[in-house]
Amino acid sequence: MTESLHNPESIHFGSDNYAGAHPHVIDAIATANGGHVPGYGDDPYTARLGEVARELFGARAEIYPVFNGTGANLVALQAMTPRWGTVLTAASAHINTDEQAAPERIAGIKLLTAAEPDGRLTPADIARAASATSPQDPHRAYPTVLSFSNSTELGTVYSRDQTRELVTAARKAGMRIHLDGSRLANAAAASGATLAEMSEGVDVVSLGGTKIGGMIAEAIVVREPDAVGGIEIIRKFSMQLASKQRFVAAQLLALFEGDLWLENASHANAQARSLAAKLREAEGCEVPLPVEANAVFAKLQPGVANAVRARGISFYDWPALPGVVRLMTAWDTPDTAIDRLIQAIRTATQQMAGSDQR
Amino acid sequence: MTESLHNPESIHFGSDNYAGAHPHVIDAIATANGGHVPGYGDDPYTARLGEVARELFGARAEIYPVFNGTGANLVALQAMTPRWGTVLTAASAHINTDEQAAPERIAGIKLLTAAEPDGRLTPADIARAASATSPQDPHRAYPTVLSFSNSTELGTVYSRDQTRELVTAARKAGMRIHLDGSRLANAAAASGATLAEMSEGVDVVSLGGTKIGGMIAEAIVVREPDAVGGIEIIRKFSMQLASKQRFVAAQLLALFEGDLWLENASHANAQARSLAAKLREAEGCEVPLPVEANAVFAKLQPGVANAVRARGISFYDWPALPGVVRLMTAWDTPDTAIDRLIQAIRTATQQMAGSDQR
Amino acid sequence: MTESLHNPESIHFGSDNYAGAHPHVIDAIATANGGHVPGYGDDPYTARLGEVARELFGARAEIYPVFNGTGANLVALQAMTPRWGTVLTAASAHINTDEQAAPERIAGIKLLTAAEPDGRLTPADIARAASATSPQDPHRAYPTVLSFSNSTELGTVYSRDQTRELVTAARKAGMRIHLDGSRLANAAAASGATLAEMSEGVDVVSLGGTKIGGMIAEAIVVREPDAVGGIEIIRKFSMQLASKQRFVAAQLLALFEGDLWLENASHANAQARSLAAKLREAEGCEVPLPVEANAVFAKLQPGVANAVRARGISFYDWPALPGVVRLMTAWDTPDTAIDRLIQAIRTATQQMAGSDQR
Amino acid sequence: MTESLHNPESIHFGSDNYAGAHPHVIDAIATANGGHVPGYGDDPYTARLGEVARELFGARAEIYPVFNGTGANLVALQAMTPRWGTVLTAASAHINTDEQAAPERIAGIKLLTAAEPDGRLTPADIARAASATSPQDPHRAYPTVLSFSNSTELGTVYSRDQTRELVTAARKAGMRIHLDGSRLANAAAASGATLAEMSEGVDVVSLGGTKIGGMIAEAIVVREPDAVGGIEIIRKFSMQLASKQRFVAAQLLALFEGDLWLENASHANAQARSLAAKLREAEGCEVPLPVEANAVFAKLQPGVANAVRARGISFYDWPALPGVVRLMTAWDTPDTAIDRLIQAIRTATQQMAGSDQR
Repeated sequence: MTESLHNPESIHFGSDNYAGAHPHVIDAIATANGGHVPGYGDDPYTARLGEVARELFGARAEIYPVFNGTGANLVALQAMTPRWGTVLTAASAHINTDEQAAPERIAGIKLLTAAEPDGRLTPADIARAASATSPQDPHRAYPTVLSFSNSTELGTVYSRDQTRELVTAARKAGMRIHLDGSRLANAAAASGATLAEMSEGVDVVSLGGTKIGGMIAEAIVVREPDAVGGIEIIRKFSMQLASKQRFVAAQLLALFEGDLWLENASHANAQARSLAAKLREAEGCEVPLPVEANAVFAKLQPGVANAVRARGISFYDWPALPGVVRLMTAWDTPDTAIDRLIQAIRTATQQMAGSDQR
Repeated sequence: MTESLHNPESIHFGSDNYAGAHPHVIDAIATANGGHVPGYGDDPYTARLGEVARELFGARAEIYPVFNGTGANLVALQAMTPRWGTVLTAASAHINTDEQAAPERIAGIKLLTAAEPDGRLTPADIARAASATSPQDPHRAYPTVLSFSNSTELGTVYSRDQTRELVTAARKAGMRIHLDGSRLANAAAASGATLAEMSEGVDVVSLGGTKIGGMIAEAIVVREPDAVGGIEIIRKFSMQLASKQRFVAAQLLALFEGDLWLENASHANAQARSLAAKLREAEGCEVPLPVEANAVFAKLQPGVANAVRARGISFYDWPALPGVVRLMTAWDTPDTAIDRLIQAIRTATQQMAGSDQR
Repeated sequence: MTESLHNPESIHFGSDNYAGAHPHVIDAIATANGGHVPGYGDDPYTARLGEVARELFGARAEIYPVFNGTGANLVALQAMTPRWGTVLTAASAHINTDEQAAPERIAGIKLLTAAEPDGRLTPADIARAASATSPQDPHRAYPTVLSFSNSTELGTVYSRDQTRELVTAARKAGMRIHLDGSRLANAAAASGATLAEMSEGVDVVSLGGTKIGGMIAEAIVVREPDAVGGIEIIRKFSMQLASKQRFVAAQLLALFEGDLWLENASHANAQARSLAAKLREAEGCEVPLPVEANAVFAKLQPGVANAVRARGISFYDWPALPGVVRLMTAWDTPDTAIDRLIQAIRTATQQMAGSDQR
Repeated sequence: MTESLHNPESIHFGSDNYAGAHPHVIDAIATANGGHVPGYGDDPYTARLGEVARELFGARAEIYPVFNGTGANLVALQAMTPRWGTVLTAASAHINTDEQAAPERIAGIKLLTAAEPDGRLTPADIARAASATSPQDPHRAYPTVLSFSNSTELGTVYSRDQTRELVTAARKAGMRIHLDGSRLANAAAASGATLAEMSEGVDVVSLGGTKIGGMIAEAIVVREPDAVGGIEIIRKFSMQLASKQRFVAAQLLALFEGDLWLENASHANAQARSLAAKLREAEGCEVPLPVEANAVFAKLQPGVANAVRARGISFYDWPALPGVVRLMTAWDTPDTAIDRLIQAIRTATQQMAGSDQR
């Protein structure tokens, strides 16, 4: 394969995983290449990544590279739960809506969900779920783990105070705590906080790398080793152990050894804010949810979304919010792409208005 | 990460996955990079890969990129079996010994095993397993799928005739047929046959790319679509669907669009033959199994293996064959590495002999 | 064990499974005893039960005795779903709240739930769930089965029209249909309809026997054999195949060969109506939900429930409805027990009122 | 159902579960009937059973009634293993051959098997399995539990010394120990030892009641509570918690409160010895395995088995031993049935011999 099959200038708003890999990530892969090193993680790149994880998350932290976010979540949740694992999460959480029931199918984990208007769970949600049963009840499953996402599926960010309150409530109810940090970099960038601060009190983090410039690069960060069991065995039978793990580790090193993760996430967030600001100025557009990370939810005039897509700019409807589309920015979204999108929306809105008047 | 953390000149014999990626694979990744394309396989690299699969395996073939060999095997076997899936395989098969019971734990699949002296199942093994029960027996599980590996875990290769006989016996017993082709390239190279010829009559192939020069690059090739169900759903909940799938597809294109797969596998095989020949000439060494692909099993004098490893050359004992070590060659194993290994073995054997005489 | 360890005059309102077995059921067990018959269902009692099932449910009906309601539900749902089974059910359904997540843990089945004020799902619930995704979507699970309970966990009964509408909506969405008929006898008795009429259009019924006078006696009735696969194999590995199955079949024959099921269910329903009428007359009591089968939900004055329980009459709080208790009547609930309960409630209500005034 | 559908005089040799229930068991059920008691085990019969279990198995023992032997085994093994549970057992073990892969399918448990000529594992089998991998190996599953059956599927009995050696070897390898005691009563009766002595050093026993005169009556006896976790939750989601549990407990009380278990098992064993003695005297019959409990394996002349079955006496071929049939005696097998079987074998053997000579 010697020629590109796609237009490298194309930019969409469908997902931050439409983007490619940051050049430093490709360089890191090339650097890690050549010669032989032991497989399955017994290599110097994985070892170095362990050091980086301890620098970022504290001296007790352990890191386990995996292939994708569903893999990170599933390995983490299995390691945190016995056979009767039950997880309380937001109804909008990725593990509940977009992983084809992997928790249930792969791990037999029941998800108890709480409806939340903006993606963020509250201490009251935890208290309610815990009081409906007890850990010893043979009939009704008790939530043994809290899993929350930061940033959320709705583009909101738990502040450090909100996280602290959530963690406190979950501890009080005897739960272990999992943070789906597929976009933790975006949340941290939005909060001006470190990754450690963003996950204070959390037992296990699914740490995303793919969406902020990686290629195939996610990891599980165990902050509290006493909260997990058998994680290396679980990673293996969950098909998440790379034989040539040096290449996953190298990507994560490219992102997290320095500040590339932060730069990339900050860029994506800034572009989302910029997009939102321009949408709010555009006639016929609403931005119904707070824009705190790199997702922008926009309410467009009827017909506008399809007209814009017809011009070759991709993005998704968001069925849970009728009439609303989701626009994601990525680590590489340029100003020009935003301007082009805004222009297309403006044009389509005017045309729709025009056709309505006729 | 700007500097290499390992010695790019290092060559071992521990596994063919100790090797890195072929430069063309790295190039393909870089070529596929840049800009935005839809995630989860709706991209032009995956589309092109579909064409390549049809060229290689026939017009009805479908291909599903995944992350690793265990993932390929598990998605394939789940798609081929109902809830009561039962798989007949060789006792030495990777799914039975080296995947941490992923078939049982992830998919509830019982493995029925047949002992085989050289890694190859026979039609008699199939007849014996099938006659011990029936598909309707509520008590004793009936093998609904045959899974065989080519090349085998013991480095042997099923000839096309042997495959044909196996397939015929399995069909007669009403089984679907899965080929664990983690090293199908090596088997094909050894046989002078095409990938299609090597998998004639097979329903589903786990097609390996990682070991022959890929980085993270495996795939499921469905030759008989009627033999699978729900495979895209299963791939997702089995954590094997890459969001940035273009990068997995690009690697597979680099390997399979042209003859890179064959060149790499042929090189590994040739080096194994060369190594075996030299071992047979060396005093105190035996090569107890046929060397048909890229694995060499060697019986060394007591103490020799550890002495060689002390010189920095890695390889594994093979517990199932006491006193025997496994030496794997890879797509990049140079002559010098073989010579160095042979020299180390000769030296250690002489030293051991010397120390014995004292 | 020669002496009774409990008071055979004791009557509670905790559950209809607090009751024992009808004398005819005990007689049937004794009649089926003696001598040897083949195990695992190859016996004349199971054969006769098959005839009875065809008489009751139609010529294509098949019946599979199992041990308990969770077993019936789990075997049924597994037989109706592939590995990616997803079931739409009421949030209050027994499979969702009271089976310790057996669907998720045993069968990897995701439950999608619809909130319903009175236990009954509506066609709109089905349409909403179906439109949120599609059967081919790799990300978001599609409901492949509808499971509804009649009577419901809240003591309501789907009318035949309501069932018909539900079935029609589910068929339109491509779903198979499961009826959790743990209390189908009560629903049929309440509706003046046959078991066949109550399950018209349904593929598979979990048919309850235990609560209407059986001892250990539940069954799966398959009305549409094309809607299930591998059910006998599934029953076995789901630990629901009795070796001495004649004794389960005999109980079911005692109940369903004649009208004992109907008499027992009618009695329980009538007693619930009687209890509800008396509660409505009692000061300080409310009956917030319709009483259509054998469950009565009652809102009592604060402190009353515990005062009544202190007099030795058991029943449960219903956490989903704060301040409300559930009172179940059984096939053997006598008038005297109802009068005693009402009297205890009246007394306690007066005492509480008195203590409030002081 | 008022009339018997079978011949209560019929006696077969197919299985000890062809027999019905002992009259005392039926009486106990009737005694436990009447009135209301709380469901799910919160009843006086279950409480009394707990006392009996402590009398029989020691002060720390806990007992959990379940429905059948597969249920007992599966709940026990799940409670003894984490998600990566792996069980070493005899290749002939019931969990490996006759439970339709319930351990794999329900619990994701891999079974590692050792071939054994007479059903009994040896310390060497344990050492071999343990040395093939390690508890931390991510690739190859380590046996975390030993499960052995006494009496075995081949009718042999581990002596107390053999049990002690096995237990010691398993402890040394860090395994927990499960005893499938579906026929522990027969083993104890054969050994002149108590149930506690027969299970010394064992963590958890599947205690059989059905085959020695119960109807639906098995239990899990936990001798070492530290070796299990979540057992009540597991029993529930494994569909093994009876709502009207008093009736299971009552059966077990009838058997184990006094010596009925021992009388019944002793009778079955004695009849097996008697049958074996008569077979050994009969021309053309061999008894290839030791007869230590209530199973007799007999090698008959070709054609004899079918000729005997044609006279209405049922028993099974034993495919693992070509030409051999298994003859099981039960708690109620009378001398006359044995004489009738022997006579039928003698007659058929003579007829076959006669037809051969023609």
